[in-house]
Amino acid sequence: MNILITGGSGFLGARLARTLLQQGRLALNGGAARTIESVTLTDRAPPPADLQADPRVRFVGGDLLELANARTLPAAGTDAVFHLAAAVSGECEADFDLGMRSNFAATHALLEACRALGTRPLVVFASSLAVFGKQPGRPLPRPITDDTLPTPQSSYGIQKFIGEQLVADYARKGFITGRSVRLMTVSVRPGRPNGAASGFLSGMVREPLAGLRAAVPVPAETLVALASPARTVEGIVRAAEASDSDWGPLTGINLPSLRTTVGEMAAALEAVAGRPATELLDWAPDPAILRLVDTWPGDVAWDRARGLGLSADASYEQVVRDYVRENPAAVKLAAR
Amino acid sequence: MNILITGGSGFLGARLARTLLQQGRLALNGGAARTIESVTLTDRAPPPADLQADPRVRFVGGDLLELANARTLPAAGTDAVFHLAAAVSGECEADFDLGMRSNFAATHALLEACRALGTRPLVVFASSLAVFGKQPGRPLPRPITDDTLPTPQSSYGIQKFIGEQLVADYARKGFITGRSVRLMTVSVRPGRPNGAASGFLSGMVREPLAGLRAAVPVPAETLVALASPARTVEGIVRAAEASDSDWGPLTGINLPSLRTTVGEMAAALEAVAGRPATELLDWAPDPAILRLVDTWPGDVAWDRARGLGLSADASYEQVVRDYVRENPAAVKLAAR
Repeated sequence: MNILITGGSGFLGARLARTLLQQGRLALNGGAARTIESVTLTDRAPPPADLQADPRVRFVGGDLLELANARTLPAAGTDAVFHLAAAVSGECEADFDLGMRSNFAATHALLEACRALGTRPLVVFASSLAVFGKQPGRPLPRPITDDTLPTPQSSYGIQKFIGEQLVADYARKGFITGRSVRLMTVSVRPGRPNGAASGFLSGMVREPLAGLRAAVPVPAETLVALASPARTVEGIVRAAEASDSDWGPLTGINLPSLRTTVGEMAAALEAVAGRPATELLDWAPDPAILRLVDTWPGDVAWDRARGLGLSADASYEQVVRDYVRENPAAVKLAAR
Repeated sequence: MNILITGGSGFLGARLARTLLQQGRLALNGGAARTIESVTLTDRAPPPADLQADPRVRFVGGDLLELANARTLPAAGTDAVFHLAAAVSGECEADFDLGMRSNFAATHALLEACRALGTRPLVVFASSLAVFGKQPGRPLPRPITDDTLPTPQSSYGIQKFIGEQLVADYARKGFITGRSVRLMTVSVRPGRPNGAASGFLSGMVREPLAGLRAAVPVPAETLVALASPARTVEGIVRAAEASDSDWGPLTGINLPSLRTTVGEMAAALEAVAGRPATELLDWAPDPAILRLVDTWPGDVAWDRARGLGLSADASYEQVVRDYVRENPAAVKLAAR
């Protein structure tokens, strides 16, 4: 089996690649598990060294829109495509044209290139919780369900929702086997801030654990829908494995989310790393971020994902402990 | 005031142009009514002679995608754009690339050209009932409301729904003032069959009135959501007039629909033109059309349209009588 991961050098793409390479096999669309012969990673920057060292990994650097338009990717014989590449929410709001190019045009071009293969490859499209947004003067439905009408309040959310529509129609037409999964806000995201407006939901744990101060730009009672990196990758892989009939409608599904508050997140941080960690938090509401966060749903149901056997993180404290265990070099404060 | 109508030579575009030229004034977005100085019609073919004779009418022939990409249209000084141009449902299902070009790429290009004006023109986008479709193995919600999640089951429906998303985001960003209206199945549509899968819903009245046989490819009990040409144009004009606050959310709205059945339509035809008309109907289920029609909603609520003061046709018999009155040259059977 040959796999392509767009955004393959990013944090999620690299983690997905490691997961797939480690399990060594993958069952697509309810079929039998087959050996993974190759994993092609495409991104602007090269992937981490451990992935480059794996003989099954191939890296194709460049601009996804150009690579797809040139039919360089996906290569003939590609069985599954995990499309994670995207410009993030903050970038798309600041630079409309960038978002339309990276998220809208590139997704369309990638689907066209998949169609051109003529082999109906399986495509898992990473959509986002950001398809849901509170409209001015109207409350958000509580909870948001798989069948709630998305009303994106950001260009990023619109572009992701358009991607879902394209994936659904390319699948209905038989050009691809399509799976759209709406990722929750991933926390704790390791590494450096990435320009996503939701970045502080990782930074407020990651930075204090590294001994650095971190801003918390929203009130403690702010409700958020989170998923750990492990649960997120689990959902993406499950989408590829599920049969068409288990998957059901071609509309996007909400991946499992842990419903918590920013205050509970801080409490979990303190439970793991003590007062020295939470004393590094600067609670200072930022009107610009508040305005954006106010449009995000915190209460998200995920019935279809549950039907596929997926589950949410048990607690945010466990999520923080997992981060500490997985990222020893980035943690300076002793965990309890 | 300067107006652009795409698809301006088509039946609906020409009727909209006549309505606007006749009233001579238009109030945009809750403002004061202003004199209409020009109406630019763009289409592949020239508009009807009566429109060409009006000194306020300008015709720009050509391909909308090219005209928009070249920034030929909309011209500087355009206050309102009515975007009706589209490849119809049957065409889009038979030729995927045609639909993606005419409905997806051209709409995107037109919105970019509107944005390039820098004057935030008002754009009324003609979306469609076809954004709603019954998914395999799942019933459609009854009724469909303005807040029902669209699950298009045709490429045409997907392309229209993507258009709604683009209009919403271009409006949210302040590039345009956006209005997406979902047109119901227009009946009785005059003229010749146009390749829409729903064409028989006009043909089964229009052809017998002209003394011609017509196929009815679905059972009498088939539920349909219809609007007359007059009600459809009324909804499109109202969308342009409504203020942002009266309009509300940037999501698409369902225009008013008359809920009837194909059997009731035949009965209305008979009430107007007698047995000689209905004896020209060939009731012969067509599996291909049945499969498609089975995915269409017949029970559609339109609360937002009602809130804007719009109403549905009172009865289908009245719709048939209006058609007879408006199209004397096309009616051979004497109306009662």
